[in-house]
Amino acid sequence: MNGKLYGIGLGPGDPELMTLKAARLIGAATCVAYPMLETGASFARAIAQEHLRDGVQEIAIAIPMTVARKPAQDAYDMGADEIRKVLKTGRDVVVLCEGDPFFYGSFMYLFSRLSEDFKVEIVPGVNSVSACASVVERPLVARSEVLTIVPATLPADDLSVKIANAEAIALMKVGRHLSKVKAILKAQNLMDFAHYVERATLPNQKVMPLADAPDVAPYFSMILVSKGNDPWL
Amino acid sequence: MNGKLYGIGLGPGDPELMTLKAARLIGAATCVAYPMLETGASFARAIAQEHLRDGVQEIAIAIPMTVARKPAQDAYDMGADEIRKVLKTGRDVVVLCEGDPFFYGSFMYLFSRLSEDFKVEIVPGVNSVSACASVVERPLVARSEVLTIVPATLPADDLSVKIANAEAIALMKVGRHLSKVKAILKAQNLMDFAHYVERATLPNQKVMPLADAPDVAPYFSMILVSKGNDPWL
Repeated sequence: MNGKLYGIGLGPGDPELMTLKAARLIGAATCVAYPMLETGASFARAIAQEHLRDGVQEIAIAIPMTVARKPAQDAYDMGADEIRKVLKTGRDVVVLCEGDPFFYGSFMYLFSRLSEDFKVEIVPGVNSVSACASVVERPLVARSEVLTIVPATLPADDLSVKIANAEAIALMKVGRHLSKVKAILKAQNLMDFAHYVERATLPNQKVMPLADAPDVAPYFSMILVSKGNDPWL
Repeated sequence: MNGKLYGIGLGPGDPELMTLKAARLIGAATCVAYPMLETGASFARAIAQEHLRDGVQEIAIAIPMTVARKPAQDAYDMGADEIRKVLKTGRDVVVLCEGDPFFYGSFMYLFSRLSEDFKVEIVPGVNSVSACASVVERPLVARSEVLTIVPATLPADDLSVKIANAEAIALMKVGRHLSKVKAILKAQNLMDFAHYVERATLPNQKVMPLADAPDVAPYFSMILVSKGNDPWL
């Protein structure tokens, strides 16, 4: 019988924000897989590290840093093949996923390659939007408010329309799109309603009004906008 | 010195989907507070139960089941006063919150009453949207997709516009709004892209294509819609 594929959400970065279930499954795993940068660093592995068993088999999937899709797709092909080999021996494979596996996660590239042939179980994790709201110390949405989650990678025109039509907004993947986002929010008079968060829940996290944000943002940064005045009152 | 107020996300229902941090803080708490139905049942307390210390002080906030706002606001006033008394003795109070405290959570009513006078720490939890996607076994959003989270309690016209303008959609709080939502999705030819989830991650969970959903939905039900074909491929 084939092994089972687990996609396990690790939460936003603080290892203590992993679920009890994630910790149990990682601690029991004889084979884990995770994405790794070309530098050899893996955020997912770092979050899970203290739960890994001695001698656990590790499948590190090196993701090329390029906007071209083909090299990354090739890397996932290779990673999925390695995982497939282990699953076919009857052993389970636990894929370590930053945040939540199905929320803008790279796990979907393994899922699409393996879910037809193997049993899959997803363990949801605390996503970065909830993490950012917790450190900004402001509710995301209340009662009948609508929350729109928008990647800042969209073209400026699209982004501008999405923001104009939204109530509460989380702008993901800000990184090198920071100045574009700032310009849109200024044009819509929303700067006073926007907070900037960098590396939420990690020791080097930064939280501030967007007006005070640095000019250069890392990939793991987010902007939360709430158009209401104290919407939770 | 005053005690600290904790708003602790418990995740969607499976007690194992609570974070390590939530379990640690609940286990250490000498006073917990939580919302309770008039029947005496508390979903939050049930999720946290196995971590509660013997002899822990419990502040149960009985929330009247009515759409009128005044009785509920009075209940939160009373609950906040009880919590305030404990905080003033220097002891911490841990508020048990279903899901994530700042994601449509009733915690905000305590937060608004107490956060000016006391230190507050929010522990984010796995929210119901991530939980539903995990049991539907389909990615919520990938790459540059926009996710719109909409309470089904909105008037039909608003709801219809929000759904028409969105890509991936999570419809919260479906409950007695199920037939209204179904009619809108049918009119927009989206029934084939919609999944219904009831009590995600609990032993009595239900997951099915929306077309097969029962006619009556409980409050803890959700509909996920993804307009793309296999958006993760």
